[in-house]
Amino acid sequence: MEETTLRHILAECGADALFLEQDFLRRYVTGFYSTDGYVVADREGCSFFADPRYFEAASAQLAGSFVKVEPGAFEAAVTRAKDAKTLGVPYPFISRAACAKLEERGFALMDCMPALRNAMKVKTPAELDKIARACDIAEEGLLATFPRMKEGMTEREVAAVLEYEMRMRGADGTSFETIVAFGAGSSVPHHETGDTRLKFGDVVLIDFGCKVDGYCSDCTRTFLFGDDGKHARFKECYALVLKAHELVKQRLVSGMTGREADEIARGCFREAGLDKYFTHSLGHGIGLQIHEYPMLSPRGEEVLTDGMVFSDEPGLYFEGEFGIRIEDSICLRDGKVVSFMKKTSRDLIIL
Amino acid sequence: MEETTLRHILAECGADALFLEQDFLRRYVTGFYSTDGYVVADREGCSFFADPRYFEAASAQLAGSFVKVEPGAFEAAVTRAKDAKTLGVPYPFISRAACAKLEERGFALMDCMPALRNAMKVKTPAELDKIARACDIAEEGLLATFPRMKEGMTEREVAAVLEYEMRMRGADGTSFETIVAFGAGSSVPHHETGDTRLKFGDVVLIDFGCKVDGYCSDCTRTFLFGDDGKHARFKECYALVLKAHELVKQRLVSGMTGREADEIARGCFREAGLDKYFTHSLGHGIGLQIHEYPMLSPRGEEVLTDGMVFSDEPGLYFEGEFGIRIEDSICLRDGKVVSFMKKTSRDLIIL
Repeated sequence: MEETTLRHILAECGADALFLEQDFLRRYVTGFYSTDGYVVADREGCSFFADPRYFEAASAQLAGSFVKVEPGAFEAAVTRAKDAKTLGVPYPFISRAACAKLEERGFALMDCMPALRNAMKVKTPAELDKIARACDIAEEGLLATFPRMKEGMTEREVAAVLEYEMRMRGADGTSFETIVAFGAGSSVPHHETGDTRLKFGDVVLIDFGCKVDGYCSDCTRTFLFGDDGKHARFKECYALVLKAHELVKQRLVSGMTGREADEIARGCFREAGLDKYFTHSLGHGIGLQIHEYPMLSPRGEEVLTDGMVFSDEPGLYFEGEFGIRIEDSICLRDGKVVSFMKKTSRDLIIL
Repeated sequence: MEETTLRHILAECGADALFLEQDFLRRYVTGFYSTDGYVVADREGCSFFADPRYFEAASAQLAGSFVKVEPGAFEAAVTRAKDAKTLGVPYPFISRAACAKLEERGFALMDCMPALRNAMKVKTPAELDKIARACDIAEEGLLATFPRMKEGMTEREVAAVLEYEMRMRGADGTSFETIVAFGAGSSVPHHETGDTRLKFGDVVLIDFGCKVDGYCSDCTRTFLFGDDGKHARFKECYALVLKAHELVKQRLVSGMTGREADEIARGCFREAGLDKYFTHSLGHGIGLQIHEYPMLSPRGEEVLTDGMVFSDEPGLYFEGEFGIRIEDSICLRDGKVVSFMKKTSRDLIIL
């Protein structure tokens, strides 16, 4: 991040200093990835405390930035923060045990996450580039997986191929556990990828994503593995989900609330009398975490603005029959929706 | 787990009820995996609160067990717990925000993690089976990866192949971010797998593992990608690390402390005047989390007993030159060490 952003977060939070030990927050502030370490930031500056495993790499990567790399861990970070009466820590992510350790040292704690969230939900051009790359790789991975899908493969094997293809294209890993669902399994929004085998005529739902420099992509495609002629109802519903998905892209503009965005899709399903089968919310923010702010749901009162990245993922689920979800990672630019997904079709694919 | 184990945890913790919302703890208590949900347990019984995504699957899987599956989420769980004055929650894992939500409802909180840890660190036969399967798959994955390693491949590509081979054999995913390090990268214990390309004569260090039903495996192998004749010092050090690794297996017996176990390897390095290059501890517990109790380190005062599973991972690191680590997941049975790793050689492999 920029030093000015950090100053803004400090001012908004109101604490004397920020004290961060969560991987994704250290990475957000410094841009450096490590499994351990502490960031202490106040009006005097920002220090990253790295243990011997990371000190050299962090010093090299952060040379010339506003982040000062210092050796040490918890004790060094506490010493650096000693003049602060109040420490800003992220209440939704810091553990009770970690709070106790800081309070024992006499610090009063405040929640810095509202201020951090406000900054994190609007992405910088550099962050948008990383998300775009993660989306490209995800789509390329899926396209490489299609021709490798054969009758008799398990859901887990298809996930293996897809994850491999993303990894080979530069992904650091998946952004969440890949969901591959065959047949009726697609009607479970959080289906656990298992040992069901692929059959001719199956509905296939794949919800997946990868990480690049910590930033996530999120994509869902639903398609047919061959058409056995029994899919008239499925195709009707697919067309409706696609309509809802595309309407969001057309009608969502900066300045709307998450609730208004959700209603674009939900209203589309309601007109068809099927809104009760849309059992989740339209979307969620995407960034260093796969679920961030803003929330696009019936309770989402947050205003959506340029630079925000989130999912557009309407779906319909008919228990024991089939489910359909069509999801792109999208962002708002110049007031309108731009999708990161440019390579895979949203029209119904029949493999 | 068994119902008696849960009663024992409740008694040891001393709280009126346990209130758990962490994935791995819900899974430990119920055996059922979900991304959301709450477990409330008291002397009257144990309830798992599942939202609509999981209710049906949980009801089917847990039918006939001591766990009662009930519909709902936080509010339902709080209502179930309403007669409890004190709630046991895991202080190292529950967030400040989650604590506040419970305290607002008038509950006094206590840390249940010490009691949970005491139970979790000794594995049941069913848990040992899952860890054994995760270890088998990891080793088979590595053996399948060896012939696919070619000059010019990147570290990330080797990780992609290895993860694919584990996935295809039934792994649910990796148990941590796969570390693949070529050449001098091996001297960094937590090397970040990157775009370095494999060259003839490279030292290769791979630290990896996978999950089966949530249970982790952890393995490290260091080997040569061809022998360019410049590895006399490396081979000497390899023999020493192997000696330390095997000594632990021979001499570690139930009843020793983690410190005494660590000292078996550290003493071996000290005799050779190289202990300062062994920059981490000997091992850590392995289970539903990749880092659990017990700790095998110079500060590990915990007594090691039958049924505990942990890593035996001595290493030597020469900055900018090379690093060596040889790691098995092992357990204590009938007072002695039994390794889960039976398929890959610990003797120096030259590909």
